[in-house]
Amino acid sequence: MNHTEKDKNFMREAIRLSRESVKNGGGLFGAVIVKNGKIIAGSANSVTQDNDPTAHAEVNTIRKACKKLDTFDLSGCTIYTSCEPCPMCLGAVYWARLDKMFYGNNKTDAKNIDFDDSFIYEEIELPIEKRSIPTIQICADEAILAFQDWKNSTKKIEY
Amino acid sequence: MNHTEKDKNFMREAIRLSRESVKNGGGLFGAVIVKNGKIIAGSANSVTQDNDPTAHAEVNTIRKACKKLDTFDLSGCTIYTSCEPCPMCLGAVYWARLDKMFYGNNKTDAKNIDFDDSFIYEEIELPIEKRSIPTIQICADEAILAFQDWKNSTKKIEY
Repeated sequence: MNHTEKDKNFMREAIRLSRESVKNGGGLFGAVIVKNGKIIAGSANSVTQDNDPTAHAEVNTIRKACKKLDTFDLSGCTIYTSCEPCPMCLGAVYWARLDKMFYGNNKTDAKNIDFDDSFIYEEIELPIEKRSIPTIQICADEAILAFQDWKNSTKKIEY
Repeated sequence: MNHTEKDKNFMREAIRLSRESVKNGGGLFGAVIVKNGKIIAGSANSVTQDNDPTAHAEVNTIRKACKKLDTFDLSGCTIYTSCEPCPMCLGAVYWARLDKMFYGNNKTDAKNIDFDDSFIYEEIELPIEKRSIPTIQICADEAILAFQDWKNSTKKIEY
């Protein structure tokens, strides 16, 4: 697929963030989000610094971009990530409604330095009862009440 | 699989959070995380209030629990979520290394009120070139440098 010199430069900023982070003892991934040809947010992975297992570069950058634009909808934006996203980050990219994604390293590169997301990709595709984390349904008749509340609510903001 | 009356009560708290949230115009999902028989964190979905598309109940609760315990590793903890998690949240559950998961509503219940995660589940299983979000690899030879930095770093904290 096509890409421009501008795309490369945005990716280079994501890579710069990833290398700067490693230099400072942080995670080895970086990302930026671009709207109308300008970077609106960038971040490296900060899992160990922030004690937050969800603080991957893509999630951090999505959160920052949303804060900056005061929205939960990043339609019209593109994300540049220094590595192909894990399932959590890929899910976040869909929920944020990003238009397009560029990535630098791929899953194999990540696997080669023992960052192997493929386990999570495999688990997600398994039926619940075959996953390694025991997962049990309870209180279904009570949980459904929140959904009925939602259906009847006049206050709800759809998303 | 087995569950106790205690498990049901923890789930009831997740459900209570989900219903309280709907009442206040927020998202319709809730979760709690339990360690050693005690709730250490709980949250509802706050996507629209916080302008954060990653602020699902499970992600919020994982972040709170990690903050409380001052760790990025929730081994030994169980999550109770009012609904079967989306791929983003399921990924977060794995990254947080939670031991066990209970859920209330299932994917079909969510689909019935137009919260359909199945699209994202389907997308994740597709090869990159077949996904609805255009996804393009660039600058691979530059991105790999961060991984080499990481490999050679003496400062890194593995996670």
